[in-house]
Amino acid sequence: MINKLVEKIKKTEAPIVVGLDPMMKFIPEHIQKAAFAEFGETLEGAAEAIWQYNKAIVDHIYDLIPCVKPQIAMYEQFGIPGLIAYKKTIEYCKSKDLVVIGDIKRGDIGSTSEAYAVGHLGKVQVGSNSFYGFDEDFATLAPYMGADSINPFKKVCQEEKKGLFILVKTSNPSSGDFQDRLIEGRPLYEWVAKKVVEWGSDFMGDSYSYIGAVVGATYPEMGKVLRELMPKSFILVPGYGAQGGKGADLVHFFNKDGLGAIVNSSRGIIAAHQQEQYKAIGEANFAEASRQAVIDMREDIKQALG
Amino acid sequence: MINKLVEKIKKTEAPIVVGLDPMMKFIPEHIQKAAFAEFGETLEGAAEAIWQYNKAIVDHIYDLIPCVKPQIAMYEQFGIPGLIAYKKTIEYCKSKDLVVIGDIKRGDIGSTSEAYAVGHLGKVQVGSNSFYGFDEDFATLAPYMGADSINPFKKVCQEEKKGLFILVKTSNPSSGDFQDRLIEGRPLYEWVAKKVVEWGSDFMGDSYSYIGAVVGATYPEMGKVLRELMPKSFILVPGYGAQGGKGADLVHFFNKDGLGAIVNSSRGIIAAHQQEQYKAIGEANFAEASRQAVIDMREDIKQALG
Repeated sequence: MINKLVEKIKKTEAPIVVGLDPMMKFIPEHIQKAAFAEFGETLEGAAEAIWQYNKAIVDHIYDLIPCVKPQIAMYEQFGIPGLIAYKKTIEYCKSKDLVVIGDIKRGDIGSTSEAYAVGHLGKVQVGSNSFYGFDEDFATLAPYMGADSINPFKKVCQEEKKGLFILVKTSNPSSGDFQDRLIEGRPLYEWVAKKVVEWGSDFMGDSYSYIGAVVGATYPEMGKVLRELMPKSFILVPGYGAQGGKGADLVHFFNKDGLGAIVNSSRGIIAAHQQEQYKAIGEANFAEASRQAVIDMREDIKQALG
Repeated sequence: MINKLVEKIKKTEAPIVVGLDPMMKFIPEHIQKAAFAEFGETLEGAAEAIWQYNKAIVDHIYDLIPCVKPQIAMYEQFGIPGLIAYKKTIEYCKSKDLVVIGDIKRGDIGSTSEAYAVGHLGKVQVGSNSFYGFDEDFATLAPYMGADSINPFKKVCQEEKKGLFILVKTSNPSSGDFQDRLIEGRPLYEWVAKKVVEWGSDFMGDSYSYIGAVVGATYPEMGKVLRELMPKSFILVPGYGAQGGKGADLVHFFNKDGLGAIVNSSRGIIAAHQQEQYKAIGEANFAEASRQAVIDMREDIKQALG
């Protein structure tokens, strides 16, 4: 799957992942109305609105990008109906040949980690049958519990040729609370990066490891150091756009081959119709606005990478 | 909810939380057969088996204990049907007046953390209505992303009078990969503990904070230090029984008032019928074996606390 991701980035010339993180306030009135007319102002109604919104956006951008990243929390908040919409979104994106990163940030140990791994990336056994649960291509993971939380996922990934992105330095303001604390003179996130390299070193694709890292666009100086520490790890870069990361900040996250990083934008793309820049396109054509925002983001990154 | 937890511990004289972490290999043949006869060897069949298994166990132990802790991964692995069984289990336990800790170990930031918080502990808004998603009483959280990942949960907890348990020192062998690393001469888990105290200090119940910590029974010496560092934080203690923690190790996790900790056992209780000690009770009476195991665990802790 890491090879497919690299190929698709080369083909689209867009090291971009679109975060499918729908919030009700992003979803145009006409979509909400239609969904509520059918299902009422219920969890089912919200889930239907999310699904129709996602579908329209994916239909308008799938040819431009390699990859999407649905944030499961935005679906989980609507309980079971929300999670059904999450699964439907994944299936639909895969039918459009998009690589799907499940932004699940799970982190647990032993049999619990195994359960998350089979539920999201692998197959679960029931009697003599086995079933995919959510079937993402990659998953994001939290590292606090150490190797015990990563290894069961790695095992499933090796069977399924799927991959992981492990939180190293996150994009949020308080990421420094623990991640920046110095251990033997080096910040915790560097120690996590070292482990990411170690965990990924025997699980390589053609040019990059199946085990990558998450490093926020909002910390470009740290990105530079981490890029050097993890030369064979793909870096998933959140924080571009809405969180303040700029195109020019991104250059440090890439290798000299122009690869090695994939930049996420969520509301910058999916809620483009609400931004000054794209307002003229109109709420009715929200998915057109998303398409234009992807094109502009691709240009911004292209220029930054020179 | 922390007050209710304390009251129920006093009333039952059992500082015990039973981990409802069902695995297919624990579930007696006759329950699996009945479920598969109705739904086939499908995700729905697995979910039905889990639900019937949980229900029988809860029916046999609810009067003895204050609290249960379903591990969401064990349900999430069976996809949507599994998560429906998770929700049903929570509802059923609450109908039996048990306090429910959702072992979700979520950790994300900003609007994403908000989404998890409303989905699990609060209510999500849909048009002019609002709905509880999973409606646990407490949730476990991962701290790696710092205050940004905790604050949205805290806000919802303050509205709902619910609480949190934050991972400080986990019970697994590799928990030391990052948690034990020294920062200014003190291990990371102590820094996290300090933050737990800070986050919980303005959110107090009658005697304990609504924000507690997770500290593994497998590290009793660290438990001793952490107990002193966090005198007003309830400690959720996993790792008793199957993971190797013993009754005698637990004394350090409690305060002098005999309170301040709640000890988890999962397979030690729910799969008691598979243990040598309880085999005579028979697989058909698996829930009786669970009841006996709770009684024995209560005694073990009582003796340890003298």
